[in-house]
Parts: sequence; structure tokens; C-alpha cells
Amino acid sequence: MAFMIDSHVHSVFRSFEDFEALSFTGLTDVVSLAFYPVIPSGSTTLIDHFRHIIEAEPVRLSGSYIRVHPAIGVHPRCIPPDVQSVFKYMKKVVDNCVAVGEVGLELATNMELEVLREQLKLSKEKDLPAIIHTPRKEKRIITAKIIDVLREIGYFNVVIDHVNFENIDLVADLDVYIGLTVQRSKLNPEDLFKIVEEYVISNPEKFILNTDLGRDPSDLFSLPKSIQFLRVKGVDKDVIRLISEKNASSLFRI
Amino acid sequence: MAFMIDSHVHSVFRSFEDFEALSFTGLTDVVSLAFYPVIPSGSTTLIDHFRHIIEAEPVRLSGSYIRVHPAIGVHPRCIPPDVQSVFKYMKKVVDNCVAVGEVGLELATNMELEVLREQLKLSKEKDLPAIIHTPRKEKRIITAKIIDVLREIGYFNVVIDHVNFENIDLVADLDVYIGLTVQRSKLNPEDLFKIVEEYVISNPEKFILNTDLGRDPSDLFSLPKSIQFLRVKGVDKDVIRLISEKNASSLFRI
Repeated sequence: MAFMIDSHVHSVFRSFEDFEALSFTGLTDVVSLAFYPVIPSGSTTLIDHFRHIIEAEPVRLSGSYIRVHPAIGVHPRCIPPDVQSVFKYMKKVVDNCVAVGEVGLELATNMELEVLREQLKLSKEKDLPAIIHTPRKEKRIITAKIIDVLREIGYFNVVIDHVNFENIDLVADLDVYIGLTVQRSKLNPEDLFKIVEEYVISNPEKFILNTDLGRDPSDLFSLPKSIQFLRVKGVDKDVIRLISEKNASSLFRI
Repeated sequence: MAFMIDSHVHSVFRSFEDFEALSFTGLTDVVSLAFYPVIPSGSTTLIDHFRHIIEAEPVRLSGSYIRVHPAIGVHPRCIPPDVQSVFKYMKKVVDNCVAVGEVGLELATNMELEVLREQLKLSKEKDLPAIIHTPRKEKRIITAKIIDVLREIGYFNVVIDHVNFENIDLVADLDVYIGLTVQRSKLNPEDLFKIVEEYVISNPEKFILNTDLGRDPSDLFSLPKSIQFLRVKGVDKDVIRLISEKNASSLFRI
């Protein structure tokens, strides 16, 4: 059995049975990230969502053989009017988390940019990695703007996530982790293999696989499937272990 | 294929794939009820949870072949400090729902009793059914207190839910629907069959099956399994159709 860590899931939207089934594939740990499905009308919505992740999810899933590691953050599509109260709460409880996330930019409005800056400052202050979403639309332009913010804050202990052929050259030489999201509508196994050949094999300590498992239609088994696909394509098992387990273990200290 | 309606699920905690799989068993409609996994620290948490159910869930699951019918309410374990703001919001949007729920009593504190009263008044005013939770602990005593509140408000267009042998005699002669929740840790098929023999066959228009599918460990297929169990035990198909589809269809006008 290959042991795996999934560095990006939204566990609150998935059943106990899903995680139990995933445990049989060798999944041992997940990082459970914040995301709210409608724009929050007030700060308590996100604060209670964070409590849901930090306080309730590890208990709920404790019998599933999978450890849940919380990550909290204000996603660019989930900014409430009184976001400062959310930041204040995050400062108090983020030490109970393995990362700040999911943060990032969706449309790169001024508000989104400010919310990202604040959270990268918090990550830097707390010496915690940040998990950074790159959007589906305008992925290349928005990724460039995210990199500008990282340079401005001077913090690179991050995963730039959902990277694909549209933006990989922008981040390949940066001192960051690169998240490859193997999921329907994100990276299929064939594209993953091309990226592995072209970028990962020469620098396997830089890449982290994940699934973004959550409320959208998903392939529950996309991580073990992708790994088996890479294996039968002849990718070295040590490379597979790095990108599916060890790099995430180092970054998140889990 | 037997067509079914599940009158009590918490769809926000279940994947698209779960509902897609359930549609293949003949499930056509679910009533998706409100419940928040930690005690909300403010009213926007519940208001946004209601928006999640009303605005986002039917869209998310529209491709699953199952129709989602929203129900909103303050569960006795989810009372925020500023619950009056939640009631104000409910008044504005509950016309977009098929029921008020999940409401009820857990410990029957004064606060819980007041929150239940307010919501039964709203149900009465809006001529909407209420879905009433009965707890696992002290089920009999708490059910008696719920019945007192129904009498006080003078409203019986409700489902008293999660009924089992502990409290069924208390509600059997009341002019309400009785919810039988076929799920791990609630009613197993054998106990369901005993209740069907003893109570349902003589009065099949009074009972509604459901699963309470949500974040706790669940058997996804407990509704079709229970129905097949009743069928092979010889229960009349018309009785099965009433308790698994037609009664819910009448009550919720779906």
C-alpha cells in the first residue's frame, strides 16, 4: 500500500464513508480547508465555519482512520463585509491549524488583494504555510498578480495550487511549492504525467498532489488513480512518494 | 423501479455522487433541512446556512436527477445568541421552502421551548408543515413536552420525526405525521417492520420514511434497503408507496 496525504480537501462537504473508503486506498491524512458556498453576510458565518473545521471535523472523522488537519482562511469568493473581525479571530486560533487557507485571488479586485495581503502577513507572522488558490478563468494573469503580492509581502512558504500548463512556467522557478490538483475539470492523469515528465522529475521536492475534494462533482479516488497511472507509466516510486506524501508531510509538519 | 422521496436529509454534508447514486435506486426528491454542526456564535451563521440550502443546493444537485426542496429552521442544538434576527430572516424567505425544519427539543430548556414556539407560530402563519426532531436521550419525556407545545400553539400540520418504540404510543393517536428514520443508530429494518405491522398497516397515510442522511456515519442506501426488506416480508406495495413517496408528496406539496 502506498501511503498518501491529500493537501487540499473540503472535508465538511464529504461523508464519513468517503474518508473511510479513502483510508482503504492508503490515504492517512488530509488538510481540510475553509470555503463557504455563498458569500457570507457577516463574520460569524466564517468564524463558525472555522470552528466547524477545527473543533468538529477531527472528532467526526476520528473513526475513519484518517487524520484531519485544519486550515483556515478567507477564500477570495467568501469575503464578508466585516472581514476584519474574521482576521481577529484567525489570529487567536490559527495556531491550531497546519496552514492558512484557502486564500488567493479570483478576480483580483482591490478587496481581494487586500484580503490576500493581510493573510500572507499573518502566515509570515505565525510561520505557517499558506495554501493559495489560482482560479479557472484568467489563470495566467491572476497567478502573476499573486506572485506580485508574494514578492511585496516577502513570503514564499506557500503552495500555489491548481497549477496546470497555463501557469506552470510562471511558478516553476519560484521558491514555492506547486500544487497539482488531480480532479475532474482540473488535471487529468495524462496532463499530470506530462507535467511530471517535464517539470517534476527534475525537481520532485517542489510538487504536491491533491484533489480539492468537496461539494462539486468529484472523483473520490482521483488521487490513488493518478498515482497508479504514474506508476504504470514508469515514474520512479521515490518521486511518487515525494509528491503524494513526503513533501506535504514536510511542509505541513504532519 | 420504486420511486421514493426522502423527507429528511442534510444535503449540504453529502456529495453530488451520493445523490447521483441514490437517483439510480429510484429516489426522486429530498427535503434538505437546516442543521449547523457547532453552536452558532451569531445569526449570520444560520442565515447563510439557510441561503446555502435555498440558493446553492438546488443548483449544485440539479445534474443529479434529484430535486432538492429546502427546509429552514433553528434546531434546538443550534440556537445563536441573537436568534430573533434569524426569525426575522426566516419570515422573509420561508415561502421558498417546503417546510420549517429541523426544529424540536433536545433538552427542553426554556430557551429551546421558546424557539420551538416561535417557529410553530411561523409555520401556522405560513401554512407550512414543520419537521420536528425528537432526541435520542429521554425521547419519551421530551416527546411529551413537544406535544404540549403543539397543543399550546394549536398546530398539528407537522411530522414528529425519529419516532421509535420509545415514543410511538404518545403520537399514534395525534393528528400529525409520524417520521420513521431508517438509519444506523436509529431504526433498523427489523424494528421498522415491527412498527409497520403494529401501527402502519392500519393507518398507512400517517407515516413517512426518511434517512437523516448527513454528516454522521450513514448507510447511503438505507431507504431502498428498508423498502426491499418490507417488500420481501410481504408488506403491501400500496402501503410501501404511501410511506416512501405519496405521504411526503402530499404533505410537502411536491
